[in-house]
Formats: sequence, structure tokens, C-alpha cells
Amino acid sequence: MVIKDKYGKGARAERELIEMLWERGFAALRVAGSGVSRRPCPDVVASDGKMTFAFECKSVAGDYVHLSYDEIVKLITFSQTFGAKPWIAVKFGSKDWVFLDMAKIQMTKGENFKVSKSFAYDDGKRLDELIEMNRDHSDL
Amino acid sequence: MVIKDKYGKGARAERELIEMLWERGFAALRVAGSGVSRRPCPDVVASDGKMTFAFECKSVAGDYVHLSYDEIVKLITFSQTFGAKPWIAVKFGSKDWVFLDMAKIQMTKGENFKVSKSFAYDDGKRLDELIEMNRDHSDL
Repeated sequence: MVIKDKYGKGARAERELIEMLWERGFAALRVAGSGVSRRPCPDVVASDGKMTFAFECKSVAGDYVHLSYDEIVKLITFSQTFGAKPWIAVKFGSKDWVFLDMAKIQMTKGENFKVSKSFAYDDGKRLDELIEMNRDHSDL
Repeated sequence: MVIKDKYGKGARAERELIEMLWERGFAALRVAGSGVSRRPCPDVVASDGKMTFAFECKSVAGDYVHLSYDEIVKLITFSQTFGAKPWIAVKFGSKDWVFLDMAKIQMTKGENFKVSKSFAYDDGKRLDELIEMNRDHSDL
């Protein structure tokens, strides 16, 4: 069963991610009204002046994260204009944030996406891996 | 006399700026908790993938805008890490947003800054000028 976090808990988890990003040399911010804005936007944006990330964040108490097709489209649309790399950031309970490649996320009926805890921690990148991976690319 | 806008009005003015930026090909966002975050952050961030701006926004009903030294330092600190150009965005009543060069802002007693309406509209850049100016630089 998926339990949708209340606003406060989700915001707290996002602030934890933002702190992790600052500790790694990124300026990071939470987006105001990301769920209700008429323009597409992610939940968290970070940059160190060389690489820029846009994150759609999901933190849940249960074993599955659900994402709507609309959320994915908005993340990609924003990122293309802003010049950011789009990533899905997921956090299950008190475990670490992990980052998922959109191409690998399983589509469910009704154009939605579903990610299991086991898939996320098997297949997702940790933050240090994500940064390292993109640093390699930006050095090319 | 400076009348500090209530949160709702300031947020509305910022959303107007964000809309203007989207209309000019920028992905723009409002920063959540920009006044209270423990890390430095601006009010609005925008990028078109080539140029990135960070704005400290002040919209007032009166004839003067006041900025604290701390707000300026936070804007510059954020912008240096994020790789953004820092600008002070000011709006007086129902007039247009204008953008001020920090180097030209008059310092007052107690390490604060004060900007008059007449100075802002004489010396400030309009959004189109700001973008054009930075486009010229990025073409060099």
C-alpha cells in the first residue's frame, strides 16, 4: 500500500536532499508551488555552474512510488528549456534518496508509472554516483 | 514611506515576472522558503540553457525599496555556486519590473541599501534589455 506523505514530511525529505547537494558543492533550491504552477516545474533544482539537475521528488512510507505521466512530461519540458538533466528522486521511509533513469521506469495502465522499493534500490543511483556519472560526461 | 507588501501580493508580482520570463523562452521558478532557508537563495531563478539569472525580488507600494546587506550577500553567494547572473528585480506599484546593477545601488547607514522609484526607472534595465545585454555577452 502506498501512503502519500503529508506536505510537511515531503518538504522535510526535500530539504534533506537539498542539504546533501550543498554539501557536495551544488547550490540547490526547492521550487514553490511545484504541484500547482501553470508552468511545468520540478520539485528541486541544483547546479554547480557546470552540471544542472532537475528532480521530481517522491518520498513515501510504503513500498511503491507512483508517478503520473503528466509529472514526467512536466519534468522533461522544464529541463529541456532550463538546460537541466531530469531525474526522478525517490526515498522510501528513512532510507537514502536514490535517482532513477526515466527510460527504465515501468509504465502501468492509464499512462502512469510505478516504481517498487526493491527496483529503486537495485537499479537507482546514489547521489554520489549520479554526480560522478555526470562529471565524467562534462569532462568529455 | 515604504509599505512592505504582504506575502500574497509579493508572490503574485513574482508570478508575473515568471510568466514574462516563460514568454521570452526561459524556464523560470519561484524558490520555496527563500526568506527562511538556512542556505542562501534568491526569490526567482530562470534559465534558457545558455544564460541563467537569479533574482532577489522586491515589490512595494511606496517610493523606496530597502534591501539588507544580508540579502545581497545571499544572492551573490547562491549565484556564484549555481552559475547564475545575480540581479535585483524591483517593482513599484503597478509599474513594470526593472532590474538593477548591484554596483550602482546606494548604501545607507547600517549596511543596508535603498533604491528610489525614480532611480530604479531611470537607471534600471527592462527585462528585454537585460536579456539582450546578456545575449550579446554570451555570443562573444
